[in-house]
Amino acid sequence: MEFRTKIKTWTRMVEEALDHYAAEEDLPEKTLYKAMRYSLLSGGKRIRPVLSLAVCELLGGDYKRVLPYACALEMIHAYSLIHDDLPCMDNDDFRRGKPTNHKVFGEAIAVLAGDALLNKAFEVMLDDVEKDASSLELLKRKIKAMSIIAGYAGSHGMVGGQVVDLESSGREISGELLTYMHSRKTAALIKAAVISSALICGANEEDLKALEEYSEEIGVAFQIKDDILDVEGEFEKTGKAAGRDAKLEKPTFVSVYGLKKAKEMLSEVTEKALCSLDRFGEKGSFLRQLAIYISSRGE
Amino acid sequence: MEFRTKIKTWTRMVEEALDHYAAEEDLPEKTLYKAMRYSLLSGGKRIRPVLSLAVCELLGGDYKRVLPYACALEMIHAYSLIHDDLPCMDNDDFRRGKPTNHKVFGEAIAVLAGDALLNKAFEVMLDDVEKDASSLELLKRKIKAMSIIAGYAGSHGMVGGQVVDLESSGREISGELLTYMHSRKTAALIKAAVISSALICGANEEDLKALEEYSEEIGVAFQIKDDILDVEGEFEKTGKAAGRDAKLEKPTFVSVYGLKKAKEMLSEVTEKALCSLDRFGEKGSFLRQLAIYISSRGE
Repeated sequence: MEFRTKIKTWTRMVEEALDHYAAEEDLPEKTLYKAMRYSLLSGGKRIRPVLSLAVCELLGGDYKRVLPYACALEMIHAYSLIHDDLPCMDNDDFRRGKPTNHKVFGEAIAVLAGDALLNKAFEVMLDDVEKDASSLELLKRKIKAMSIIAGYAGSHGMVGGQVVDLESSGREISGELLTYMHSRKTAALIKAAVISSALICGANEEDLKALEEYSEEIGVAFQIKDDILDVEGEFEKTGKAAGRDAKLEKPTFVSVYGLKKAKEMLSEVTEKALCSLDRFGEKGSFLRQLAIYISSRGE
Repeated sequence: MEFRTKIKTWTRMVEEALDHYAAEEDLPEKTLYKAMRYSLLSGGKRIRPVLSLAVCELLGGDYKRVLPYACALEMIHAYSLIHDDLPCMDNDDFRRGKPTNHKVFGEAIAVLAGDALLNKAFEVMLDDVEKDASSLELLKRKIKAMSIIAGYAGSHGMVGGQVVDLESSGREISGELLTYMHSRKTAALIKAAVISSALICGANEEDLKALEEYSEEIGVAFQIKDDILDVEGEFEKTGKAAGRDAKLEKPTFVSVYGLKKAKEMLSEVTEKALCSLDRFGEKGSFLRQLAIYISSRGE
């Protein structure tokens, strides 16, 4: 299968599973299920679960084993977007071209739908672990995968990065702190997607290390590219660069390093990501194309 | 040890563990750790973790094994209070005599501190499971305990109950829906505290069933008593009963059934809770006293 067909196939696989996990139920709290589904099933690139499935293919693993964890990551991603969009956070009215969760269901339900999605991520993984009786070794790998996901999602991972992001608004920050922030805010779940899948598929130490490096680099690449697209998109729309004056004045790779240097950095981390895949030869081709896709999207 | 000494000892045990789990760290996101600790370590009755430890004593289990799960439940409880107090939810300025989390740290940090505490609950439990290598049977019991906690905390448990609560404000609801709501909103974590500890301590089927029944009854008792105290406290302060006119006009056991019937119901569920402990004889004495304490607090 070629690159785009694989993305399509895996996206569909993930969306069917999400639809099943977050079924709408006719219970007194049904608004909650509607709100959870509204954000979870409203499109999006599904880059985290697709990465999990790509790693699974690379390692010759079984998709069914990885799917609950891939979906859990997407639930964590979805909850973080719902809370991020709240008036007290980024105060966004639209996401993916649709009104944000709180615009449709109200702020209170949006807070609770986010909470429920984070909780659901663990319910889905624990349900899988509970049912699994194949071998003690696989059980331990799954527990480790879950623990990695929890770690990267929490105060030392994504949520910690969000706090740094919040507190950096309107301030000058160092390149070091910017990298610290994005290594948590954006890259953490991307790393979790790659590493958790590798663990479940039984990767050896060296493969695991290489994939970890790959995920770190594409996580950063993803953010730098986002920052570049923001500026260039803004430029196209208004004729003036956004940079430091961008919405909420959040520091970005472009505002800290300038556009030229940011583009150089993007090439550099993409190159590093590609190098880390060397050991996989031909098998690494999807992940290679994905790294290139991330750094060239919108062009 | 007598009843109050036990409560004191167990509370201290829990608070020391919470202090350790949620250590303040000198990292760029340190505001987050401060905000998490502010709500987690600000007192409270610690009724859920104390229940877990009491069940552990009853079954002759090892406190150290139960403690991570007891603390996780307290983290889940703390996160739910932070989010509950937000302006878009109950809009409370004070909790336990101190300004609420968002009053001190702002709404955005309060949302994230809640998210991080929920996530942390799973980190703590997974960390324990990862380290545990004592036996496959214990491992499976712990996974089951974690899964029970996740289930009772999420959309089919506490969060679901909060949604029903939210949507019932200012409406007439049936006694049936009121019980449905509280069985989730309040009783769910109380049940989770009892059942998870019983599982970890290796309870047999019959003991588990009896303890499950006990926890269901005291969960309801706890809420009825809260509703009665609200009305009687309001009466003492203002000279007029709160009842249906109480804050936010949320339906309560008193507003739905009237004060007299609510008191009768409280006696009834307390009686049932006591009966469910019959099989434990003398050993059940702490849990018996706790049931009586819950239904007579404030008198």
